[in-house]
Amino acid sequence: MRNIRITLAYEGTAYSGFQRQENSITVQEILETALQKLTGTKTTLYFAARTDAGVHAYGQECTFYTESSIPGDRFIFALNILLPPDIRVTESREVPYDFSVRRNNYGKTYGYLLTEEKDCPPFFKRYTWQTGRKLDISKMEKAAEVLSGTHDFTSFRGNNSVPASPVRTIHDIRIIKKHHFFHIFVTGEGFLYHMVRNIAGALADAGTGKLTPKDLREILEAKDRKFLGATAPAHGLCLLKVYFTPVTKELTEKTICGSYAPWSV
Amino acid sequence: MRNIRITLAYEGTAYSGFQRQENSITVQEILETALQKLTGTKTTLYFAARTDAGVHAYGQECTFYTESSIPGDRFIFALNILLPPDIRVTESREVPYDFSVRRNNYGKTYGYLLTEEKDCPPFFKRYTWQTGRKLDISKMEKAAEVLSGTHDFTSFRGNNSVPASPVRTIHDIRIIKKHHFFHIFVTGEGFLYHMVRNIAGALADAGTGKLTPKDLREILEAKDRKFLGATAPAHGLCLLKVYFTPVTKELTEKTICGSYAPWSV
Repeated sequence: MRNIRITLAYEGTAYSGFQRQENSITVQEILETALQKLTGTKTTLYFAARTDAGVHAYGQECTFYTESSIPGDRFIFALNILLPPDIRVTESREVPYDFSVRRNNYGKTYGYLLTEEKDCPPFFKRYTWQTGRKLDISKMEKAAEVLSGTHDFTSFRGNNSVPASPVRTIHDIRIIKKHHFFHIFVTGEGFLYHMVRNIAGALADAGTGKLTPKDLREILEAKDRKFLGATAPAHGLCLLKVYFTPVTKELTEKTICGSYAPWSV
Repeated sequence: MRNIRITLAYEGTAYSGFQRQENSITVQEILETALQKLTGTKTTLYFAARTDAGVHAYGQECTFYTESSIPGDRFIFALNILLPPDIRVTESREVPYDFSVRRNNYGKTYGYLLTEEKDCPPFFKRYTWQTGRKLDISKMEKAAEVLSGTHDFTSFRGNNSVPASPVRTIHDIRIIKKHHFFHIFVTGEGFLYHMVRNIAGALADAGTGKLTPKDLREILEAKDRKFLGATAPAHGLCLLKVYFTPVTKELTEKTICGSYAPWSV
């Protein structure tokens, strides 16, 4: 048995998220079906992040065990022939037998795209939250400072989340305004269910002046989701990168600047 | 009767081009249907550029005459409610009765997006020619110099083009490499059928070394389409801007840099 790692980019629009579900089509199911056709064997995919319905990925990471004789770096071609155009393998390679995208990952960067307009040209519609609200980037940046670091993020956790420690560490939140877009980049060790979308929603509320840094500190302390505003929509969010080495400023910068996706600047 | 001008952004993927056709769905038909629903009267749309099937637009310009009492700047909202998400009105206003998007236009800028990769992440797939060829930007720039200026562009004209003078003036061809993309911007007074796509195809051939500047000069002189390589695919092309004042370097720069579309840098 060999362990193969694949990096995936997908547009989440058509799918009910990544993880296999009984009554809907997910990215995992499409991939496992393609792997079965390719290798002749039922194959389980292990993945780094359970992205929600409608959320996109530029750098999702997965592994699977296989008896197939296809060389590790050829799976990219073999799989892309079978996959639909909205799911692309961008890299494939054999990794040590015990490599795990969950256990060996040091953190992730998510990108979130939003605009002040309430209606934008068609090209970015599937990737942008069109808020229709005037946003002040310096207010957003001050709010981001409050959320950075290690906190109990219970107030930023979706209601259906599985029990786990609500304490998470955010290394860095960067907000960049470019042309009509606000790009938010959140890098952290790990995230709770809906956490990044709740952060994006809170930053938008901060940008309009609805939430002050003091409010945000109180909301964190309250440890109750009901004090926070609406979760930002799924289609603005993209999993940009999963890190398998300690996260440095240089690595984060590379993710923010050079990625082949609308979230990148 | 009032004359209303609308600026349009559309994703061409789903349509058989802009101009109304007997046996397929075009952008013009969708818009004229929306205008009829809105005003209660059959309305003819006049447009600046007849974009091909699959070609996109960020700044298509149109006018129509109407007896409707809707204020000029409200048509944007009234129409966008009726239009599908891949066709958006981005501006609307009343213009002088004799204003014509054809007669009063001084030129246009088209954008073309291509990449060396043969398979790119899903987000830009609909907007990018994935050439699978190694491209040398300095060679492309030298080829662009040959094509700039006033020439007989018979060799760059599609086979089904309507008779018209083949002499056209290109003000400027700019090629910018950014991350994984090559952005080509072609600004000119007017263009023949398939002319920009043939220019993009020729620049790609120049980038691989297949076409030298000398070859291009000979092809221009030959005045025969058969000496040129393949037309670049439609989905890489976007009509970015129609100018209603004399085209200056500043105006072109603004189009290239600030547009709300993947072609912009």
